[in-house]
Amino acid sequence: MPAFASIADLRAACLDLPAGDPAAAAAVARREAVLTKPPRSLGRLEDLVGWLAHWQRRSPPRLDRVEILVFAGNHGVVAQGVSAYPADVTAQMVANFSAGGAAINQLARIAGASLRVVPLALDRPTADLTMAPAMDERQFLDAVATGYDALPGEADLVCVGEMGIGNTTAAAAIAAALFGGGASRFAGRGTGIDDRGLARKHAAIDAALARHTGCLHDPLTAAAALGGRELAAILGATIAARHAGIPVVIDGFVCTAAVAPLRKLDAGALDHCMAAHMSAEAGHRDLLRELGLDPLLDLGMRLGEASGAVLAVQLLRAALACHLGMATFAEAGVSDKPA
Amino acid sequence: MPAFASIADLRAACLDLPAGDPAAAAAVARREAVLTKPPRSLGRLEDLVGWLAHWQRRSPPRLDRVEILVFAGNHGVVAQGVSAYPADVTAQMVANFSAGGAAINQLARIAGASLRVVPLALDRPTADLTMAPAMDERQFLDAVATGYDALPGEADLVCVGEMGIGNTTAAAAIAAALFGGGASRFAGRGTGIDDRGLARKHAAIDAALARHTGCLHDPLTAAAALGGRELAAILGATIAARHAGIPVVIDGFVCTAAVAPLRKLDAGALDHCMAAHMSAEAGHRDLLRELGLDPLLDLGMRLGEASGAVLAVQLLRAALACHLGMATFAEAGVSDKPA
Repeated sequence: MPAFASIADLRAACLDLPAGDPAAAAAVARREAVLTKPPRSLGRLEDLVGWLAHWQRRSPPRLDRVEILVFAGNHGVVAQGVSAYPADVTAQMVANFSAGGAAINQLARIAGASLRVVPLALDRPTADLTMAPAMDERQFLDAVATGYDALPGEADLVCVGEMGIGNTTAAAAIAAALFGGGASRFAGRGTGIDDRGLARKHAAIDAALARHTGCLHDPLTAAAALGGRELAAILGATIAARHAGIPVVIDGFVCTAAVAPLRKLDAGALDHCMAAHMSAEAGHRDLLRELGLDPLLDLGMRLGEASGAVLAVQLLRAALACHLGMATFAEAGVSDKPA
Repeated sequence: MPAFASIADLRAACLDLPAGDPAAAAAVARREAVLTKPPRSLGRLEDLVGWLAHWQRRSPPRLDRVEILVFAGNHGVVAQGVSAYPADVTAQMVANFSAGGAAINQLARIAGASLRVVPLALDRPTADLTMAPAMDERQFLDAVATGYDALPGEADLVCVGEMGIGNTTAAAAIAAALFGGGASRFAGRGTGIDDRGLARKHAAIDAALARHTGCLHDPLTAAAALGGRELAAILGATIAARHAGIPVVIDGFVCTAAVAPLRKLDAGALDHCMAAHMSAEAGHRDLLRELGLDPLLDLGMRLGEASGAVLAVQLLRAALACHLGMATFAEAGVSDKPA
């Protein structure tokens, strides 16, 4: 376990991330160029294999062990009426994950991925960010460390996801703190709040941004003041994956906001991360653009739970299957010469 | 085998297509509404299950047997220098499909789908459409019938794909004949032709459109004069699927052009078809828009072979797995009441 003694410690770790292996990606590209297809005709599938190789630091890459980490947390800001569902639903859904009844259980099974759910102090919600910092430094660092330690060191790929009633409010607040534009730029309907609830959500986010102005100069102190335990854990797991040479697929709006502070600290900090999909949550498009992330899928999903991330795993498996299994022009006796 | 004695016969069949079952789709929607997720939060995945149910005419739908049909043909228009590869590559790639070395072999395996490749008279290319109709009525109807008969009657889903050096020229010609705008609107680089080749392709398409003006008033005579055997077979398989209650996933630009005449004859003729992806081929976006089809994926692919269609199968399997496997709010003890 990394002893993040302080936010300054964590910041130092975020500024000292290992590089990938461009040679592994180049080896992938050399093979792709001689497989029996027009050059580049598999489009992003070819890039995905190179990305896996780059960050696994080996060619060919592997997808033998794909792990899904779903972090769950509760949020004091639900007292402001920002969600369509009561806070109890977070724990109820964690129980549903354990019983195998949620969407992510079905998706994990068909994608051949293992699911681990990590609830973070569900009986102790973060503080209401309109009134106080959501977490103090110690609470924030503990959550980051929980995420860091949850990472399975042997995985070939990790998907991060979340569950937490109220957490699109926290995510939108972080996004607005990092990239400006206030609540109106990043707040959406989350699980499906009505117009009056959306107005309350806007008000809560803008109030929080005003209250915590002093914390917003630093991406990590902003994440502590505005975020949530599950978001902090996702940030921790994402750093751990970089250290362990494990590429990360990030799910939707909340996960993207959770890792955004890393990108703000270091322009290359998310290069080992792939955005799985464009969520239907209103602020996701702008946030992805700010982070320079190009999502693989756009299916109008807004469930969370890593549900979008696991769909992207299927694309990665398809890409790798082509890379490993296709014949070369020479092997197949197919002409690769211009007409 | 349907004896399409004439194009008039075929046209009559295209104007008498069976409907789906809205009650099956409604049953899917009722179940989706009580599964443990915010309403509509799985986005298009929910619609996909309803679409399967509607056209399989049962709820829940099944994906036990998914069949891929790849039709291959050769094109006299390659004499005009419209492709980056020689015509021999069509047969070489068919051999590669048989040997298991192509992209579609790998993708079919991981999607749990069966692959059947149907070569259509590869040793007798269609006529050069700049000089003569690509096919006469009998050749066209025979190819349509081959596709119709290739459809496995017991499948739960069919993916259609193609292989044919020169066939993006034929496809662009059909698209331009049906929707206007000439070669410049629908011609792209296919397997990767250079600027001079693209200019030859534009010239060939515009010459063909001018030569065959007399055929273009009817979508089916246009498909005969400008198309290819593999395109005609895709059209036949798509009609057969409608008759058999089997939903169809269409692959990229060439497949879309192949079925476009059906839509031109009857606004609802493609309702049992799902566009798998937005190809990188330049004309695909406009063609999909003309047909009112909204593709599931956009990954910069332009390979053909049903490669995009089979990726969409993975999404359909994910959607169905959620529909079948998720717990309801009541079963899981999760609150579905507003906060």
